[in-house]
Amino acid sequence: MTRLLDAEPVVVAAGVDVLADALADQAVPVTRVDWRPPVTGTQDDLTRVLRDSRRVEANAAAIARMLRSTAALVDVKPAREALGLQPGQFLHAGPPISWERASGPMRGALIGALLLEDLAATAEDAERILAAGDGISLEPCHHHGAVGPMAGVVSPSMWMFELVDEANGGRSWCTLNEGLGKVLRYGAYGPEVVERLQWMGKVLGPVLREAVRRAGSVDIKAILSQMVQMGDEGHNRNRAGTLMLLRDLLPTVVESGADARDVAAVARFVGGNDHFFLNLAMPACKLATAAARGLPGSTVVTAMARNGTDFGIQVAGTGDSWFTAPAETPEGLFLGAYGPADANPDIGDSAITETAGLGGFVMAAAPAIVRFVGGSVPDALRTTREMYEITLAENDAYAVPILDFRGAPTGIDVTAVARTGIRPRINTGIAGREAGTGQVGAGLVSPPTECFTQALGALARTTSGT
Amino acid sequence: MTRLLDAEPVVVAAGVDVLADALADQAVPVTRVDWRPPVTGTQDDLTRVLRDSRRVEANAAAIARMLRSTAALVDVKPAREALGLQPGQFLHAGPPISWERASGPMRGALIGALLLEDLAATAEDAERILAAGDGISLEPCHHHGAVGPMAGVVSPSMWMFELVDEANGGRSWCTLNEGLGKVLRYGAYGPEVVERLQWMGKVLGPVLREAVRRAGSVDIKAILSQMVQMGDEGHNRNRAGTLMLLRDLLPTVVESGADARDVAAVARFVGGNDHFFLNLAMPACKLATAAARGLPGSTVVTAMARNGTDFGIQVAGTGDSWFTAPAETPEGLFLGAYGPADANPDIGDSAITETAGLGGFVMAAAPAIVRFVGGSVPDALRTTREMYEITLAENDAYAVPILDFRGAPTGIDVTAVARTGIRPRINTGIAGREAGTGQVGAGLVSPPTECFTQALGALARTTSGT
Repeated sequence: MTRLLDAEPVVVAAGVDVLADALADQAVPVTRVDWRPPVTGTQDDLTRVLRDSRRVEANAAAIARMLRSTAALVDVKPAREALGLQPGQFLHAGPPISWERASGPMRGALIGALLLEDLAATAEDAERILAAGDGISLEPCHHHGAVGPMAGVVSPSMWMFELVDEANGGRSWCTLNEGLGKVLRYGAYGPEVVERLQWMGKVLGPVLREAVRRAGSVDIKAILSQMVQMGDEGHNRNRAGTLMLLRDLLPTVVESGADARDVAAVARFVGGNDHFFLNLAMPACKLATAAARGLPGSTVVTAMARNGTDFGIQVAGTGDSWFTAPAETPEGLFLGAYGPADANPDIGDSAITETAGLGGFVMAAAPAIVRFVGGSVPDALRTTREMYEITLAENDAYAVPILDFRGAPTGIDVTAVARTGIRPRINTGIAGREAGTGQVGAGLVSPPTECFTQALGALARTTSGT
Repeated sequence: MTRLLDAEPVVVAAGVDVLADALADQAVPVTRVDWRPPVTGTQDDLTRVLRDSRRVEANAAAIARMLRSTAALVDVKPAREALGLQPGQFLHAGPPISWERASGPMRGALIGALLLEDLAATAEDAERILAAGDGISLEPCHHHGAVGPMAGVVSPSMWMFELVDEANGGRSWCTLNEGLGKVLRYGAYGPEVVERLQWMGKVLGPVLREAVRRAGSVDIKAILSQMVQMGDEGHNRNRAGTLMLLRDLLPTVVESGADARDVAAVARFVGGNDHFFLNLAMPACKLATAAARGLPGSTVVTAMARNGTDFGIQVAGTGDSWFTAPAETPEGLFLGAYGPADANPDIGDSAITETAGLGGFVMAAAPAIVRFVGGSVPDALRTTREMYEITLAENDAYAVPILDFRGAPTGIDVTAVARTGIRPRINTGIAGREAGTGQVGAGLVSPPTECFTQALGALARTTSGT
C-alpha cells in the first residue's frame, strides 16, 4: 500500500472513456486499451476454437498462401468455353438461391440473361420459364471458381476473363464489366442492356482475347499494387486500374490487325468506364482467397458473398459450407431521384475484394471514394485502421501510402470478429430493389454478425477430435 | 490584479515551445500561435508594401485570373512553327544565362540541341560554336510564353504542345517529354538522345498532332483535377495524368489512319513514361500564372524558374523583372551509384507547377511520392499545410482528398514569405552536374530567400507614387 502511494500511478483504462478522460484532464498519463466484450453467446465456441491445436499453423498456412498468390490475366473467352456452361445453366452471385427467394435485381438479371441467350422472347416469357424452372439451373459463381459483381449472373454466351495464380496453381473467372447505370448486373434487362451484351460478345470479347493472347499475359496483381498507390481501393474505385489495363493492352490491340473502328470503340468503352477493372480485381482476389481453402483448423474467411437476399461467408477450416443470414441494406449516396427506399439488400460477389484485404479494407488509400460511397475522410482512415483488429496479416504488396506504406489488413479471422464484435466493412454498389431498375447508388455495408457466429460454431464442432 | 487571479488564466504562447509545454504538463490549456519573426532586413519594405493601397485589389484580381484560367491542348507542332524559332535560336529554362555561366546539364542540353539541328558534327564542335556565340541566341522559355523542364532547351525542330486558356486568352507551349535517365533535358547528348529526339519529330509529334486535331482539344485542367484525386502532384508524379492522356487520345490516334506500328510505338512510348504528362501540366500552370502578370501593386509570384546556376522569380506587380540568387542543390534520393556530390544545383522551369499551387504544394495528395523524392509521409502532409501560410487562395479545382478536399494552396504572396520566413517547397528532378550525365536523382528544394527580399524591395519602390 505504501509503495502504491509513493510512486507515480500507472493507469490503464478499458471500456467507457469517462474515467480515462477525467484522469487526462488532471494531466495523469493514461494508456487506453480498446477492449470490447465478445459477441454475446460466443464464449464457449470461442474458447474451443482458440484452444484448437491446429489453428495457429493452419492460419499461418492460409496467410502464406494468400500473400504469395499471383494473378495473371491469360485469356478471354465465352463462359461456355471457360466454364463449360450449357444452355439453360446460369451462375449467380452469393450463396445458393432459388427463383422464389431471389430479389428484384437478381430476377431482373436472370430475365436479361434468358433474353440474351434467346431462351425467351419477352421478359414475361423469361419470368414464366424461370418460375417453372424446367431446363434451368441456378448455381453460385463461387462453386465454379468464378465471381460476379452485383447479381453476378453468368450465361453461356457471356465473355469472361480467365486468370491464373502460378504460385498456388489456381484459376478464376469473371465476366467483362458493362459500365454503370442500366446494366444487367444491377438487374436491368431492357433492349439497350441486351444489345450492349451482344456487342461485348461480338466485338469487345474477341478484341480483348486477341490482345491478351498476343501479350501472353497481363500481371493483374502488379496493377492492383499500383492502384493502391493511386487512390483506388479495387472495389468501388478502379480508375487507375482501368487506365493501366488500357495502357498494357492497347499496343497489342493496335498491332492485332483488328478493324480500327472496333479498336477505337473498345478503347472508348473501356476508357469510358472507370469500373472496368473491377472484374479483374475480383477474380484476382478470388485466387488469393481460394488458395486458403481446405485447411482444417483455419479460422480465415475465404469468401464473403451476397445474392441480394442472403449474405454468406465461407471459412478455410469448414470447406464448402456457407454460413448465411439475411443481407443488410447498404447506406450511402443515391443517384438522381433515388433514395434509401429504392435500395435492394446487399448483393454481389464483389466483397471478395474485402475478403482479400482490398476494397473497404484499404479505404484509407482511396480517400476520394467518400464522394461516391458516402462517409468522411476520417471515417475512411478509421475503417482501415479498424480492419487490422480483425485480420491476421498485412499484405505489403498492397501498401497504403498515407499509413506510411503499412500493408493492407488481410485475412479476416472469424475468432477476431467474434472476440471484438467488429464486422468487416464493405464498399458496395446499390441495386434498385425492383427488377429492371439498375443502379441506384453506392454505399457501405457489413455482413450480419450471425454469419460469423455460425461459422465459429461450425469451427468449434470440427475441434471435437483434437 | 484581483480579477486576473480570480479567473482561470487564458494562455496564448508564441515562439519557443518550452513555456507552452510546461503549462500543458500542468494541464493548463494553451493556445499556441505559430509565429516567427519576419526575414531580417525586410521590415521597412514589408511595411511599405503592406500599406500599398493597390495591393488588396490587385492580389484579388491576380487570384481571380489564376483560379478561372483554363488549359486545353489544341495542337502539337515544331517550335519553328509554334514560336517562330529560327536556326541558331535556342530557348532554355530559368532566368537569362550566358554560355559562360551555364552549368553542366545546361551546356550538355545545348550541345545536344546543336547536334539535333545539324549545326555541329561533334560535341566538341558544338561546344566551340556555343562558346564563340556566333549566330547563336539563348533566351529563357518564359520570354516566349513557354516552359521547359530541367535544362528546358528548345530548338526549332523540336515538337511542342500548344495549350490555350480560353478564360484569360492566353497561350503556352512545352516540348514533348523524352522519358527518364539519359535524356537531353537532364544534360545528356549521346547518340541515343539525338536519335530519340529525331523519332519524336518524325513519328511521335505528327501522330499526336493528328490525334489532337481530330479530337479538337483535350482538357488538361480537368485531367490535373482528377490527378490530384489519384496520388499525382503534377510535378514528379504524373502517372495518372499520363494514363488519362493516353485514354483521351488513343481512340482518335487509332482512327487517324496512321500506320499501326507507329500507333503502337507511340502508345508504348507514352505509356512507358510516367512523366509524359509533366510537359502538359507545366504549360497549364504557366497559363494560370501568366494570367496574373502585369497587375501593379500585386505581390503574387508569377514564375519560379531555375537555369542550373540561378534561381529566379517574377512577380505580378513588377512585370518582366527577374529576382535572382544562386540556386541551391536539391536533397533527395539518388539513382544507382550516384550521390549528392553528383548533383547539379536546381534547374528547370518545372517549379511553375508549385507557382500555380501544384507539385510540392499538394504533396499531401501524393504521399507515394516520398519514395521518389525522399522525406516521409508526415513531411508530405506538413509541407502542404505549411504552404497555406504563404499563399492567398485555395484552388477547389485541385482538391486534396486527405485534407478533406481542401483546395490546393495557390498564389504565393511575396509579403507572406518575407513575413514568415517560410519558403516554397519544390519537388524536383536532380541532374548530374557533368554535361552528358543525365538524371542522377529526385528530391526537394526551395528558392533562395534573397529572391523574395529582392522582389519585396522592387515592390516597395513601385509604391513611391501612392
